[in-house]
Amino acid sequence: MQGNMMDVQLTIPTILERVRTQYAGREVVSLLVAGRDDQGQPVAHKHRTTYGEVADRARRLAAALQGLNLNLGDRVATLCVNSFRHLEAYLGVPSAGLVLHTVNIRLHPEQVAWILNHAEDRVLIIENVFAAMIPAIRAACPLIERIFVMGPLPQAIPGVDDYDALVMGHEPLERYPQLDENAPAAMCYTSGTTGNPKGVVYTHRSTVLHSLASAPKDALGVGEADTVLAIVPMFHVNAWGLPYTCAMYGAKQVFAGVFSDGPSLARLLEEEQVTITAGVPTIWMGLLAELDRARAAQAPYDLSRLQSVISGGSASPESMIRAFQERHGLRMLQAWGMTETHPLGTASAVPVGVDPVSDEGYALRAKQGRTVPLIDIGLLSDDGTLLPHDGQTLGRLIIRGPWVASSYFKGEGQANFFTLDDGQLWFDTGDIVTIDERGFMHIQDRAKDLIKSGGEWISSVELENAIMAHPAVAQCAVIAMDDPKWDERPLAVVVPRPNQSVTHEELIEFITPRFARWWLPDATVFTDHLPIGATGKFLKRELRDEYRQYKSSGWPQRPARSDT
Amino acid sequence: MQGNMMDVQLTIPTILERVRTQYAGREVVSLLVAGRDDQGQPVAHKHRTTYGEVADRARRLAAALQGLNLNLGDRVATLCVNSFRHLEAYLGVPSAGLVLHTVNIRLHPEQVAWILNHAEDRVLIIENVFAAMIPAIRAACPLIERIFVMGPLPQAIPGVDDYDALVMGHEPLERYPQLDENAPAAMCYTSGTTGNPKGVVYTHRSTVLHSLASAPKDALGVGEADTVLAIVPMFHVNAWGLPYTCAMYGAKQVFAGVFSDGPSLARLLEEEQVTITAGVPTIWMGLLAELDRARAAQAPYDLSRLQSVISGGSASPESMIRAFQERHGLRMLQAWGMTETHPLGTASAVPVGVDPVSDEGYALRAKQGRTVPLIDIGLLSDDGTLLPHDGQTLGRLIIRGPWVASSYFKGEGQANFFTLDDGQLWFDTGDIVTIDERGFMHIQDRAKDLIKSGGEWISSVELENAIMAHPAVAQCAVIAMDDPKWDERPLAVVVPRPNQSVTHEELIEFITPRFARWWLPDATVFTDHLPIGATGKFLKRELRDEYRQYKSSGWPQRPARSDT
Repeated sequence: MQGNMMDVQLTIPTILERVRTQYAGREVVSLLVAGRDDQGQPVAHKHRTTYGEVADRARRLAAALQGLNLNLGDRVATLCVNSFRHLEAYLGVPSAGLVLHTVNIRLHPEQVAWILNHAEDRVLIIENVFAAMIPAIRAACPLIERIFVMGPLPQAIPGVDDYDALVMGHEPLERYPQLDENAPAAMCYTSGTTGNPKGVVYTHRSTVLHSLASAPKDALGVGEADTVLAIVPMFHVNAWGLPYTCAMYGAKQVFAGVFSDGPSLARLLEEEQVTITAGVPTIWMGLLAELDRARAAQAPYDLSRLQSVISGGSASPESMIRAFQERHGLRMLQAWGMTETHPLGTASAVPVGVDPVSDEGYALRAKQGRTVPLIDIGLLSDDGTLLPHDGQTLGRLIIRGPWVASSYFKGEGQANFFTLDDGQLWFDTGDIVTIDERGFMHIQDRAKDLIKSGGEWISSVELENAIMAHPAVAQCAVIAMDDPKWDERPLAVVVPRPNQSVTHEELIEFITPRFARWWLPDATVFTDHLPIGATGKFLKRELRDEYRQYKSSGWPQRPARSDT
Repeated sequence: MQGNMMDVQLTIPTILERVRTQYAGREVVSLLVAGRDDQGQPVAHKHRTTYGEVADRARRLAAALQGLNLNLGDRVATLCVNSFRHLEAYLGVPSAGLVLHTVNIRLHPEQVAWILNHAEDRVLIIENVFAAMIPAIRAACPLIERIFVMGPLPQAIPGVDDYDALVMGHEPLERYPQLDENAPAAMCYTSGTTGNPKGVVYTHRSTVLHSLASAPKDALGVGEADTVLAIVPMFHVNAWGLPYTCAMYGAKQVFAGVFSDGPSLARLLEEEQVTITAGVPTIWMGLLAELDRARAAQAPYDLSRLQSVISGGSASPESMIRAFQERHGLRMLQAWGMTETHPLGTASAVPVGVDPVSDEGYALRAKQGRTVPLIDIGLLSDDGTLLPHDGQTLGRLIIRGPWVASSYFKGEGQANFFTLDDGQLWFDTGDIVTIDERGFMHIQDRAKDLIKSGGEWISSVELENAIMAHPAVAQCAVIAMDDPKWDERPLAVVVPRPNQSVTHEELIEFITPRFARWWLPDATVFTDHLPIGATGKFLKRELRDEYRQYKSSGWPQRPARSDT
């Protein structure tokens, strides 16, 4: 027998039509750059529109792009910040049967050009604040036929057209192309901390399923009554899919544009009565400092509507989760994923029966959490066998699901994809993790950041989280330095808080109760900042290059501990 | 270019594996029949188990069924009440690659046999309380090879085996068959108020997508912290998919078995601290009476955890929604669907900016609501053109989506499926509705229940809801009676509340402010009960047969109104 359900494809036009017909009156708020102040800093202008307008313009954009003589599946690149215009492109480009290629604006122009060429982009939409890059891109990217600029330019650039004129010069697309749900819809490149960036191509199906799985309350908890500020950039893994998830469920969207400093965000959260916000830990450190400052000045922000501060991109230390909860009554929820996983793989909502503000609750919330539906994870040993989910055993995290990559663009990086004995395809994340009996996954390290001391693994992330809990520490990275006896030993690189100081000995004393003695860092280097990459993560590779020889080169701080 | 996302199929074994690994400790509670009291009424025994046990037994059941020499896609019928064992069958039967055919236990044995034969069921699982039907079924259904009984029997029946023995006689299935997501997973027959019942075959894909779309907070709002009592029977449209949705998200499930009277339900809601419950309006009338009684007796139930009383199957009158809210602080949420739509099509959560307990909020909550994602609805005129969504225009509701039927089993009833000018397939629901600018759908009538007076339509449902708001009215159905001048005129059939009385004139006076004069019923018949069908709906066809000639046959109550 056969099933007899309709063959309705899961496509992005269904989201666009939904937001157009059901949520036309719901607001979309964007901070745009209105000009520069005396110091050359951008000045914000708050722009308000509605989903109805966004949907109308998205359909005009789709019609306009169809008029450019492109083929189904051709790539349209964006080099844009978070705004209502970028949201139009999210909805309009895939609805025209084209592929939205969001490019990371924080990369070096040479890297941007490399990625534009590799993706064979034919159209580029670029934010006016990055217009200075246009000549270099045009020189390096001969495949790009048309360039459109979002927002006003101080003066026209020959051969460059205005995005708004393109949009408003066309009537809304009346009929979408017939799209298979497995057709490509969007692409992103991995941040590429090793080797060249690799392209991940999302499909209409993966995008729709990801939105459905993201919305329920144990995941991101998005509904029509919510106001969502995604600080995670729209050029990075589709801003965790939130522009699509919010549109599907009619949540009001707020975009911060280039204004991601603590005071700007705190003000925006308060003014727009945001209920859900999402970003990386470095953003939350900035916000936390501003909330602490305001509270100390007895002028706290009113964030009473804020239900979830979602943190991802890298691990949030338990100390930060506690600080938001205990000092400001704010619930931080970790979510984990990668460019290759669309990204949502796990979320750290605590299970029934555990008090979220108990020690057990905090410990669980410091983990990356349990899978959302349809995602499977496993733990792989170095010899390719599956390891137990006991909360203790370390292994490589592997993942599988309908919004997980099966390959990279052009077939690169095939070693990351493999078939297990069950005949099923899995992706090797490169993360070293534990998984407990209930399914809570806890990242211990990136495989390449693990410290191998005397044949045993030491987790740099665990040590970093413990050290960052010290009140005098603002940031910390733990890396491997070469050691003649143990091969590698941990070295802590610490940025103290302003006007505070701490010694290596004090830090070691502070964290000693939590670790085996051989895990403790041999030394600490104090510095005024840590290098941060284009997606907001510490660049440990740079630190390793700088400090690999630290022990043999002078060992300034104290003698090696007695080995036990 | 191609997308490069994994080809992971959406199948029910992914739900079974999820509940087994992530929610093994979560409870499943069932009211079973422990025996009979002196009056022959069933006595309840509360059975407690866990998802871990249910999943283990579901996998044993899957292995056992695979040992019965069945083929992929063969049907396994259930004639069972709501319980943990039925949940095992929900998870285990499709995970073995077989099709779970849930049969309505309230049908006449001849109808049951007709359906079993039509579906070509090879195995029947039947609840012990219905064992008396077995000889008749065996005589009428030669295709059924094996019969298993859930629960103990007073004495063995030759050729009938014990379900628990079947389950526990096998080890859990280790590896599920490779299933395409479009493979059949479950089937239900329509209630068939006209013509023979028709089979709808759900697929693995439609079931998984329906669960994903049901969970978010603007739909049914299911999460791990919830405790869900689905009173809607598991033999009817998969109990609105709740057994699967709850399993996917780890919500505790409570099953009432045969105990669906008001006092039993009120006690169960209180004892298990239920947060979400779902049923049809006739069930809620019984619960409301019990809650009113207990409050009047100054011994109210503690239902402080109950967040949503979900009502579907037929329209809930605004008066009932108000009664739950105003007298008991309980939020009633309407959801609409059909056997052909799996069932969830719309839900009546109020939009942002509308106070749910204002007059506007109540009016919206008395509608059937807006679509969930991926569902499209439209309004069709009698001549096949699309009508405007203006909240006024009446038309036939058509629907389309990935969990909407594209045909009936064996290709019957093809007139209900048709292709619009856009080339897409739609299902004609047979409901007469309005749809407003925001997408709120409001059922005015079944097409066959509309009253056609002088060439204009009168909605029986609107009149019923208005009359049921009268404090002396317990139940009301409005039907067409033949009229020599106007073709048809409305007749109200009313069941008064115990020890109360009301006249036709008082009812007409009560509803006159809300309707055009020509809508008002010409007469009222008072009776002590209305005929109710196997799915809890009033059988208007029986009433029409009885009262069609009411006007010409004597007109006992009052002279015809002056026609204006």
